[in-house]
Amino acid sequence: MLVRSRHALLRACTALRARAVWYQSSPSTSRKGPLLLGAPQLRPLSCTHTPCRAAAAHTVSVQGANSLSLRSHACGELRAHHVGESVTLCGWVQYLRQNLFVILRDFSGLAQVLIPQEESASHLRAGLCDLTTESVVKVTGTVRRRPAGQENTGMPTGEIEVLAESVEVLNVCRTLPFEIKDFVKKSESLRMKYRYLDLRSSEMQRNLRLRSQLVMRMREFLCNQHGFVDVETPTLFKRTPGGAKEFVVPSREPGRFYSLPQSPQQFKQLLMVAGVDRYFQVARCYRDEGSRPDRQPEFTQVDIEMSFVEQAGILALVEGLLAYSWPAEKGPVQVPFQTMTYEEAMRDYGVDKPDTRFCMKLMDLSPVFSSTQAEFLRSALSKPAGSVQAICVPSGAKLFSAKDLEELKRTARTLFGQELSVVLVRADGTLKSPLKKLLSASATEELLQGSGAQPGDLLLLAAGALHTVRPLLGKLRMQCAELLESRGVSVRDPSAFHFLWVVDFPLFLSKEEDPEQLESAHHPFTAPLPEDTHLLYTEPHKVRGQHYDLVLNGCEIGGGSIRIHKASEQLHVLKNILQEDPSLLSHLLEALDSGAPPHGGIALGLDRLVSIMVGAHSIRDVIAFPKSFRGHDLMSCAPDFVSEEELKSYHISVNWPAEQEGGEEGK
Amino acid sequence: MLVRSRHALLRACTALRARAVWYQSSPSTSRKGPLLLGAPQLRPLSCTHTPCRAAAAHTVSVQGANSLSLRSHACGELRAHHVGESVTLCGWVQYLRQNLFVILRDFSGLAQVLIPQEESASHLRAGLCDLTTESVVKVTGTVRRRPAGQENTGMPTGEIEVLAESVEVLNVCRTLPFEIKDFVKKSESLRMKYRYLDLRSSEMQRNLRLRSQLVMRMREFLCNQHGFVDVETPTLFKRTPGGAKEFVVPSREPGRFYSLPQSPQQFKQLLMVAGVDRYFQVARCYRDEGSRPDRQPEFTQVDIEMSFVEQAGILALVEGLLAYSWPAEKGPVQVPFQTMTYEEAMRDYGVDKPDTRFCMKLMDLSPVFSSTQAEFLRSALSKPAGSVQAICVPSGAKLFSAKDLEELKRTARTLFGQELSVVLVRADGTLKSPLKKLLSASATEELLQGSGAQPGDLLLLAAGALHTVRPLLGKLRMQCAELLESRGVSVRDPSAFHFLWVVDFPLFLSKEEDPEQLESAHHPFTAPLPEDTHLLYTEPHKVRGQHYDLVLNGCEIGGGSIRIHKASEQLHVLKNILQEDPSLLSHLLEALDSGAPPHGGIALGLDRLVSIMVGAHSIRDVIAFPKSFRGHDLMSCAPDFVSEEELKSYHISVNWPAEQEGGEEGK
Repeated sequence: MLVRSRHALLRACTALRARAVWYQSSPSTSRKGPLLLGAPQLRPLSCTHTPCRAAAAHTVSVQGANSLSLRSHACGELRAHHVGESVTLCGWVQYLRQNLFVILRDFSGLAQVLIPQEESASHLRAGLCDLTTESVVKVTGTVRRRPAGQENTGMPTGEIEVLAESVEVLNVCRTLPFEIKDFVKKSESLRMKYRYLDLRSSEMQRNLRLRSQLVMRMREFLCNQHGFVDVETPTLFKRTPGGAKEFVVPSREPGRFYSLPQSPQQFKQLLMVAGVDRYFQVARCYRDEGSRPDRQPEFTQVDIEMSFVEQAGILALVEGLLAYSWPAEKGPVQVPFQTMTYEEAMRDYGVDKPDTRFCMKLMDLSPVFSSTQAEFLRSALSKPAGSVQAICVPSGAKLFSAKDLEELKRTARTLFGQELSVVLVRADGTLKSPLKKLLSASATEELLQGSGAQPGDLLLLAAGALHTVRPLLGKLRMQCAELLESRGVSVRDPSAFHFLWVVDFPLFLSKEEDPEQLESAHHPFTAPLPEDTHLLYTEPHKVRGQHYDLVLNGCEIGGGSIRIHKASEQLHVLKNILQEDPSLLSHLLEALDSGAPPHGGIALGLDRLVSIMVGAHSIRDVIAFPKSFRGHDLMSCAPDFVSEEELKSYHISVNWPAEQEGGEEGK
Repeated sequence: MLVRSRHALLRACTALRARAVWYQSSPSTSRKGPLLLGAPQLRPLSCTHTPCRAAAAHTVSVQGANSLSLRSHACGELRAHHVGESVTLCGWVQYLRQNLFVILRDFSGLAQVLIPQEESASHLRAGLCDLTTESVVKVTGTVRRRPAGQENTGMPTGEIEVLAESVEVLNVCRTLPFEIKDFVKKSESLRMKYRYLDLRSSEMQRNLRLRSQLVMRMREFLCNQHGFVDVETPTLFKRTPGGAKEFVVPSREPGRFYSLPQSPQQFKQLLMVAGVDRYFQVARCYRDEGSRPDRQPEFTQVDIEMSFVEQAGILALVEGLLAYSWPAEKGPVQVPFQTMTYEEAMRDYGVDKPDTRFCMKLMDLSPVFSSTQAEFLRSALSKPAGSVQAICVPSGAKLFSAKDLEELKRTARTLFGQELSVVLVRADGTLKSPLKKLLSASATEELLQGSGAQPGDLLLLAAGALHTVRPLLGKLRMQCAELLESRGVSVRDPSAFHFLWVVDFPLFLSKEEDPEQLESAHHPFTAPLPEDTHLLYTEPHKVRGQHYDLVLNGCEIGGGSIRIHKASEQLHVLKNILQEDPSLLSHLLEALDSGAPPHGGIALGLDRLVSIMVGAHSIRDVIAFPKSFRGHDLMSCAPDFVSEEELKSYHISVNWPAEQEGGEEGK
């Protein structure tokens, strides 16, 4: 293509441009010079230019994925109704078959190109048969029906083939570290190093396109249908006090640093104070999680904020947003979503982001053991918030091995410091359990009745304070689901999407290091529930917040809140409850005092949402160029060393660990 | 609003959610539990939940800017046809008038609220009259026609007013550093410090909304109409060799830094190699311009790349894009755009981004002076590429003062080291000029004829090498346009949008410090013109590139190119012509060798484009939270100091200038 003559190119240009004049409302309008206003009147300063290229005012609108392209059709779109048409395809050589066929691939799929076998086409044949896989070619030919019996029903274009008439090799592929075939399994590091090859897989092509379409639909919903304004907020910002997870960016002023924010939280609230009314942004966010594995230092959230809205309005907006934007092929989204309170979620699932695709809820068996002989149970029950909680694993007794049970106990011990009691219900209905000898006949009856356990089931019991045993059983519930699935039981439908709102979270939590001291459960800008507002001044630990989490199949995919919009209330929370220095947020407090409307919003984690939507194992499969498990770009080797010279203008130098140990040697 | 009871809130929620169930394709479908596949068959693990909130399956679709809101209407949308309707407005108190009216403002405009004067409404009246400006209120009332003679034709809602029936004060505005009125002029630093107030101005509201709408239309065009895929690329990347304008971001690995890229150039090309076919992104880019004033360290570009396309295809795409997305209120965009070569632009306008809204083209007057007596002209003409170039400023002789002429001469001297010759054409057609005595009658005649100068006009002449005198006169042309405009002459129509393509740029330029050495005119990935490709290997300085700049009203708003897609050619350019170390771009070279399609693209500077579109003085007026002239965020005081402690995890320390001078004191 590149060795074409300039004249041929110009001809092609003229042709392309002639058919590509869109949306010209008045094609015959002549170019007008500028208006001349004001005295003194002069000869026109304007001049009429002759456009260099064709000015033929066609109003032809060429659209679609093949517009303005060297190809006439995409490989994957060819069907029986194209038979007889002359087409030009551009794509990659997937493979050659029997020196008879070239399987050509582009973003849309595969098409079979038939290599002509006549003597007169020997030149063409030789060229095609010489092609290396993954070379890039342009093929012109005629679509024909495959001979009877040679159709491939497993291939969308399997009814047809293209008889090649001319071929241009656009680029020769010389080196390939691995084959571009979906069934060829590559190591993660190889995939990352040659990401541009990995992305050629049909799975990655589909993931990126579905992501793009989802976001486009979200934008249509927010921007076109609900009056949201897409506003870009800065990513070079001030460091949040105590923002240990924020990357710093040195400036050219000594000692001064920008910071890459974890979210546009402050900006979105300030935009509401600014009267923007409805803001959204598909926002790049940053989080430096240091040594945590499988981290993505940058990620994307769909960030939304509205003025003059209540919690129910935001929830309904997000339900509408997801129902509107969810790909048709993934099935309709049922709205409204299920809603449960934080208290209900902890009570029934032992976790604030329950996977509601399956049951196995937590049960309170305290009454069964109220008069138990077992000392450890009695002792647990006698303590504040003491309880005996259980889950019943259907067929767990039948399917789990002794090793499985040991594994479950180990989880309880190592992660929660708790003992787990195991009760197996035998096929004959009798129990097998260390607890058995402690249970009277009536208590046994009560246990089976209360838990609904049936022959073959497994009961896992834990006794202790609610805030410990609930998370423990919540964890074991998930572990048992995985175990059951590994035994061939379908527990969670992988094609189902269970959206769930969790609401009425506590506004504050006790700090681990100092339980007397409160910290925000989410962030200090969340407004209390209206009926709990008075408690802010008396019993702040009891206040529930207007915070809501969106959970999908047991993953938190979003969270938001109605915000505090009164400066006095925000000041009280910061200063008196959280005991923070309010001067660090003086600009926000000042803003709230200058006419802040009631407002609230949400942020959806786009990477996670898309990865669940497409059923990807990792969010790396829905990001074009993700960082590796250790936060590296394996293709370009980022992060990389930078010379001392280059750091000079930022007034920083590196403290090399060895030097640090040896004392302060500077530089 | 916040003191409402929980029950009232729940009622409101239920009502809101009942009317807000969208897009439920099959409202009667019951929630299904997961399918149970595979042996062994068990009792269902699923459970049916009762949604906490109203599950009434309405399919009502509430849309528009008032959906899900406390308001029923936006202030600015009320018209005579709303008369008699009960409406609820939420907004800011713009001002009170005569204790009779509250002028209420929201994003959409202003509405007049009439304060009831009856004794029975004294409580309501007192509340309204107490309001401070910029307080936030919710007003419910009835729309009525203003009494005859009291209509305000200057106000879109001037035919009506709203008789208040109830008012809720949502927030009291206590402090205001300046009044929120469009006519109140604020200093730039005050505007930046209180950006959330500055954004309340109707101009900033309009700018942000127009920007959002423009980008939305662009997305529709690219994504929905032309099959582009919106792909997000990383901003934490590897430092480009010699990328002096790239911010560095320290990682937690000693000495290793990410870098914030100036554009997604490498990623967009890799996406083409990856077979993504058509990519676009509204991409955040970073540029650390150090001490340059009026810099924005982060900016936005509309980034586009296509496979299997030629230059004409990209140009037509961008023309279609702008014609489709340009706001109707700004008039239609004429396509195709005018195109000129770099050589033509330099010849006629002395600059590669000419403002074609007015003429005053450069003229070659060398023939007039071929036999001149003037030594300095003769000497200039005798040198290589020597020329006498001129512009004719209509009425310049009549309108410019001696001081103006002196100013023009100073520009020539200080910026270009050139002498400028000035020729005034008197009303009687005679000349006034130091050149006069050197010109014969026939030469004078030839000068007037050749330049087209008429009585009252001004000729500016410069003699020297073309590469100096053209830029000089290009600069003076703009300066004269400003001067003429300051004298009341309309030279450039501020409402006109003259788009222009400049093409056929040289691919390489001589380095200033070493003219023997070539550097890329744009970047090393630009492909040569097909007919110039052979010159790459013989006379690279003569090669023209397939680069194109998009110019709007004399500002470069975009640039792009067809890229080199063959590894061998790219290697030759990097290694032999530019004499760079190709190993630094080995991943790109490897990618080109693994089946890279022909591809090309463009990047449009969104901030600049929008600022010209809305007629803003600075790009700061089309960015929600811009940095100040010196690169600071004046609201939050970024960049700011960070403690040594916080820098420890990044293994860096600050070199304080004083310490640096005193030697290496470490820390």
